[in-house]
Amino acid sequence: MQANAAVLDVDANCAALDAAAGRAAAAGARLLLTPELFPVGYAPLRLRAELDPAALPSLRQALADVARRNRIALVYSLPAVTPAGEWQITATLLDQNGDELLSYAKVHLFGPEERQAFVPAAAGPGVVDFQGVRTSLLICYDVEFPETVRAAAVRGAELLLVPTALAEGFDAVPQVLIRARALENNLTVAYANHSGTEEGCDFLGGSVIAAPDGGLMAAAGAGGELLYAELPGPGAAAPEVSYLADRRPDVYRSWGN
Amino acid sequence: MQANAAVLDVDANCAALDAAAGRAAAAGARLLLTPELFPVGYAPLRLRAELDPAALPSLRQALADVARRNRIALVYSLPAVTPAGEWQITATLLDQNGDELLSYAKVHLFGPEERQAFVPAAAGPGVVDFQGVRTSLLICYDVEFPETVRAAAVRGAELLLVPTALAEGFDAVPQVLIRARALENNLTVAYANHSGTEEGCDFLGGSVIAAPDGGLMAAAGAGGELLYAELPGPGAAAPEVSYLADRRPDVYRSWGN
Repeated sequence: MQANAAVLDVDANCAALDAAAGRAAAAGARLLLTPELFPVGYAPLRLRAELDPAALPSLRQALADVARRNRIALVYSLPAVTPAGEWQITATLLDQNGDELLSYAKVHLFGPEERQAFVPAAAGPGVVDFQGVRTSLLICYDVEFPETVRAAAVRGAELLLVPTALAEGFDAVPQVLIRARALENNLTVAYANHSGTEEGCDFLGGSVIAAPDGGLMAAAGAGGELLYAELPGPGAAAPEVSYLADRRPDVYRSWGN
Repeated sequence: MQANAAVLDVDANCAALDAAAGRAAAAGARLLLTPELFPVGYAPLRLRAELDPAALPSLRQALADVARRNRIALVYSLPAVTPAGEWQITATLLDQNGDELLSYAKVHLFGPEERQAFVPAAAGPGVVDFQGVRTSLLICYDVEFPETVRAAAVRGAELLLVPTALAEGFDAVPQVLIRARALENNLTVAYANHSGTEEGCDFLGGSVIAAPDGGLMAAAGAGGELLYAELPGPGAAAPEVSYLADRRPDVYRSWGN
């Protein structure tokens, strides 16, 4: 799902998300990936100042209802407050019953506003079985660092789902870096961005789904759009080049990388 | 320099290299990068069976003469035999006086023939000052692994020179991976390939020079060609995104990458 969010208009954003879930499920999709912080809008400083964390549990419940009602798995992204009181940017994978399968907190914050509003996490990306596909999560700037996707791949990820909030002018991220991450790790990467303007930021759109051979399975334009792709099945051909088998982790460690 | 080599016809290959060095120097180039194993041709099993290592010192001397005679720095790639008798694939950077500035031995061998003929090295890429530009070397398959280029970048590389021997069908390597390596490390990557057929292998050509913003400064077609690019000067704008400053090496180490 590529879409424009209304900053701090949770009801409007949840309604858009529910409508997209309904359309995607009707089209046969089994999972809907949505952009970074979509339910609350991408506005780090305003979120930090105006969002009441006490509202988050009921918002998460509403999002679980979206998944359950539409019988579709869902990845959404929201702020979360740790027991120590630190605000993080997180992503959550729910199954089609609304039950949580995986959560992840962003490790690489981008730019001064995110760094002022949030604290970076340190845990690596988890990997879970989603309908027979080993699936992982990263968020936005994280995926631009090859180390993060490598960590997911080494842990067995075949599918990487990435909510993002990428501004205009950064076309090389989806067109070059996302394709490289898919190819160099032999996995599928879905990268779902905002479109339009939120809190003065013009978003690129340009969401993509990149295949393990580095090709694009789907690419969005500048506006709101649902992008679809079908994963390679269990009978799919092995990758032509086995980067994961050919890498030399002990050697890299000896370099002090 | 993108060109077709004649397998085990060292005189013909050195003559082609000398002519290219003369043309490049006359065009104002200060360095000529040549493909993997170009002076002997890309034919791992035949090299191992038919190349007499005793011939290598005089060949290296002839290549130093090419640099000195044409007043141009040169990167060439040759087999080398270690004191323990192991054959490696190496690359060497000479200055315009023919003096060696840097050498590197390939860490990631590609495919069964290379692995039968050669032993992979384990040392990381070095970085040297070349006319005020911090310069490093990798070879072919090495650059497809993000860990190798990251190691060079962390050691300060601004320019990465990569002799390669890439077969037809692997267009995503220069068009996606090389651009990604340049962008994600904020450095310039030059990637020089063979063209035509050697020992039954059809090479892609498609050499590229990728800029720190992930764009292509130059790209070759399928045939022999000299590609030129001018590096960003010391007054060039800082990169828009500072990946090297924003990476979190301690966190990656905690993940056991």
